[in-house]
Amino acid sequence: MPLMSSLKILGLGAAFITVGLKGLDWLLALHHRPGRGSRQPLNEVLFFPSLPACVEHLYNPDRSHSCACPLPHGLNTSFTKLLEHLLSACVSLDICLFSFSNTELSRAVLLLHSRGVRVRVLTDRNYMAITGSQIGILRKAGICVRHELVITMHMHHKFALLDGRKLITGSLNWTLTAIQSNKENVIVTEEPELVRPYEREFNNLWKANDPAKHLP
Amino acid sequence: MPLMSSLKILGLGAAFITVGLKGLDWLLALHHRPGRGSRQPLNEVLFFPSLPACVEHLYNPDRSHSCACPLPHGLNTSFTKLLEHLLSACVSLDICLFSFSNTELSRAVLLLHSRGVRVRVLTDRNYMAITGSQIGILRKAGICVRHELVITMHMHHKFALLDGRKLITGSLNWTLTAIQSNKENVIVTEEPELVRPYEREFNNLWKANDPAKHLP
Repeated sequence: MPLMSSLKILGLGAAFITVGLKGLDWLLALHHRPGRGSRQPLNEVLFFPSLPACVEHLYNPDRSHSCACPLPHGLNTSFTKLLEHLLSACVSLDICLFSFSNTELSRAVLLLHSRGVRVRVLTDRNYMAITGSQIGILRKAGICVRHELVITMHMHHKFALLDGRKLITGSLNWTLTAIQSNKENVIVTEEPELVRPYEREFNNLWKANDPAKHLP
Repeated sequence: MPLMSSLKILGLGAAFITVGLKGLDWLLALHHRPGRGSRQPLNEVLFFPSLPACVEHLYNPDRSHSCACPLPHGLNTSFTKLLEHLLSACVSLDICLFSFSNTELSRAVLLLHSRGVRVRVLTDRNYMAITGSQIGILRKAGICVRHELVITMHMHHKFALLDGRKLITGSLNWTLTAIQSNKENVIVTEEPELVRPYEREFNNLWKANDPAKHLP
């Protein structure tokens, strides 16, 4: 009888382990299923034009109540989301932009630079000098800027890499017209299969357009 | 003894089931792990400029050996990959483009239309009429084209949706300069979190720019 009892316990024990392990698997699968799980990388799409809105609270979270500008306050627009993502950079910001004239985005880049974030900017040779371009202002602030050294083509990218893990890319040039008037799209993603190729592209272009390599 | 034997068999059976189920789970997890599994959606990035190459085999797979054009044959470039993705549409193709002048991409769209794929094209009001634009050719072939009916802004998107499940989007306008000369990027993805918003955007713009709604 003791032997029979032991075997009964062994049988029941194994059956409970089976059910227990399956249950654990189901719970884990439920937790990690696409769209819900903590493992699912960020994938967000922003469409423009964006409504004008006050963005002061994004630069100064402590003094957000004190802004008296005439723009609507507290709106969560595509532009506030874009700016919020940009300001989330902690370590590095690599920007590869055809055209950069928006003063709010420029202010955000300058703020990140002043916080010690390593900022690198790659831009188009011709468009960097147009009226309203922010490139000169970024350079004066000490931010490292490189431009395409080959004249015959456009550097038409419009992407930014934050901390080497978040990618912002799309049709949107960083201009006021694009943000407030055009139909535009921006993807914000942390999907490694998308982030890594852009990281390689930035590093390749950064090296290829090193002015030291192109001295006369 | 027969009872004891039955219990032994029950115990061993339960243990085997436990090990068997865990083994099956591991095999399934291995098969579906990110980057390998059939569940992982397509995420591909193409960079331009692309080397010129013969693409005849993509239109006529059976007569690929017969092309005598002077372009390099058998190259797998960013452009051949883009064209291959485009030609993979079976049911529907929704294109939302600022500028469309590339004749190879136009030929692919016309081929899909002739195969019975439902093609819809949304484009910018001003750029649809520039020299070399393919919009008139698509319209003459019977493809449904709509353009932005509001004059003050650009329809600056550059994306295409294939069969409602594959998205092609990036900085690339469908022009020869963009493909062969500019630094450009294109994402090809089947990630539902990215595809669905673009699908909604296309349908919203398609409805908003219905000429019947804007009759004088």
